[in-house]
Amino acid sequence: MNIVDKLIENTIRTKNPSVIGLDPDIGKIPACYKVNAKSNNPFEAVANVIYEFNRDVIDTVADLVPAVKPQMAFYEKYGSYGVAAFEKTVAYAKSKGLVVIEDAKRNDIGNTAGAYADGHLGCVELLDGSCSPSFDADFLTVTPFLGSESLHPFIDVCVKNSKGIFVLVKTSNTSSGEIQDVVVSDGMTISQSIAKYVSEQADAFTGEHGYSSIGAVVGATYPEEAVSLRKLMPKSYFLVPGYGAQGGSAKDIIPCFNEDGLGAIVNSSRGILYAHMSETERQQCSRDEYLQCVVAATITMKTEIYTVLKKNYTNMIY
Amino acid sequence: MNIVDKLIENTIRTKNPSVIGLDPDIGKIPACYKVNAKSNNPFEAVANVIYEFNRDVIDTVADLVPAVKPQMAFYEKYGSYGVAAFEKTVAYAKSKGLVVIEDAKRNDIGNTAGAYADGHLGCVELLDGSCSPSFDADFLTVTPFLGSESLHPFIDVCVKNSKGIFVLVKTSNTSSGEIQDVVVSDGMTISQSIAKYVSEQADAFTGEHGYSSIGAVVGATYPEEAVSLRKLMPKSYFLVPGYGAQGGSAKDIIPCFNEDGLGAIVNSSRGILYAHMSETERQQCSRDEYLQCVVAATITMKTEIYTVLKKNYTNMIY
Repeated sequence: MNIVDKLIENTIRTKNPSVIGLDPDIGKIPACYKVNAKSNNPFEAVANVIYEFNRDVIDTVADLVPAVKPQMAFYEKYGSYGVAAFEKTVAYAKSKGLVVIEDAKRNDIGNTAGAYADGHLGCVELLDGSCSPSFDADFLTVTPFLGSESLHPFIDVCVKNSKGIFVLVKTSNTSSGEIQDVVVSDGMTISQSIAKYVSEQADAFTGEHGYSSIGAVVGATYPEEAVSLRKLMPKSYFLVPGYGAQGGSAKDIIPCFNEDGLGAIVNSSRGILYAHMSETERQQCSRDEYLQCVVAATITMKTEIYTVLKKNYTNMIY
Repeated sequence: MNIVDKLIENTIRTKNPSVIGLDPDIGKIPACYKVNAKSNNPFEAVANVIYEFNRDVIDTVADLVPAVKPQMAFYEKYGSYGVAAFEKTVAYAKSKGLVVIEDAKRNDIGNTAGAYADGHLGCVELLDGSCSPSFDADFLTVTPFLGSESLHPFIDVCVKNSKGIFVLVKTSNTSSGEIQDVVVSDGMTISQSIAKYVSEQADAFTGEHGYSSIGAVVGATYPEEAVSLRKLMPKSYFLVPGYGAQGGSAKDIIPCFNEDGLGAIVNSSRGILYAHMSETERQQCSRDEYLQCVVAATITMKTEIYTVLKKNYTNMIY
């Protein structure tokens, strides 16, 4: 099964083309998760808190969203213990039927890019010559700065293992244009030129719903660019950051979608995990109170997006 | 102490501006390292082999080179166990007086870039509110695709913790030009425009020898580009990949250096670790035989580079 089909089927089932970013920030996780941290190793203690927090969030949202997006930076900052918490989070989210989009923005060339691809999406060689999955995420974000040959090893592993990537095409941040908006030739920007390459690769690897798991990151904060990028990559799934905390509104994400209401998945991290409680409240709340806020924020986002899509696309299939 | 001064002092002491890439590849590590792998967990078994192999290489080259460059992809492919081997490798190399350049090409924005910077070069928040170093590498490679604001968090952490970064400016691979050679304005390429930014940041953070630990990756395979990049970034240290296995010759690395024979450090990974023995030989050799090959390859590279620099730069300070 092409993993993009699972993403689509989860989206149709939940009527929710959004994804919750699992960005555990120890300074913001409610105090109730931190009181019983068990480990004499302070890094392992943090990792335990992160995993317990994630497990609760995953249990709470598993029927509401199609996917989660753990941001690797927040795990690997705690070294091998943090990475172990990441591994457990991926496995747990998958066991609950969620698609896991690993946001790690890996990039390199040749056998080094191959090592990243094998480790995150494929399988790795062991001492007895056998091969075993390592992180086993469903999708991985990748950065294309080293050119098309740096993307090949990731695409090869996706095709071989029915996985997916989201190539950074137009990111949501203010200074994204410094490189991404530079004009290559014939008025085509670097973003558009990467989009053309992504689209060619996507066309060769589509699933049952006509979409491809060779996708693109397209920020919610640049709706005008999204119009042309959607046209250039009709079959690629878009991962759309920048919604909420970064300034993108429900209206801004419309051009990232196709008429069928598919083709994109909108991320919110802080807007779901931390925004609906003040810092003081997070120091005092119970787990139930905290998780009710997560549900409320998830449903608010779902409703905002679904409403605006229904209004604009009359051919939505869900 | 600015970490670039340690790199320079190590370079002067060893008369060797090169760095050995620690890219452990289980398919290429000599068989003698694999026979006694101890662990029932197959990932931990690989990680143990990797660390034992690295420790031998580090012991062997510690007096011959100023630095080592572990490539994170080859560790994290084995998940948390591989990352633990990475952590031990960094600590061991530092205990032997080597500068550690972590090649991980991290990139992101805002608090996510901050999490990468804190984890790899700074210190991370623990449950009791204290802060502790995590990976504690000396330098980290970073990818600038998301623009200058994506570099700030890394630079801030470098200044705060006396660490360094090498920003990817012009990479050694064939398709690097697809993005990096595109002209922004006034004939200035994207590489040159990033170089200008790196240079501005570098100027504000120089060490005793007049160089900065806000450095750049400039591939050995593009000597003409290196000429202009050296001029644009006179104080930045260059990390130079592409030597040996990737086609760069000793002659090609000349423009990466300044007249004093400083300003750059040339990497070789496979050319040191795997190239001087055939696959069959690596299946049969003893540790001593293997490590003699590592020494021979290290000295050959040092001699090639030192000879060509001495010939071209009469003002070398070592």
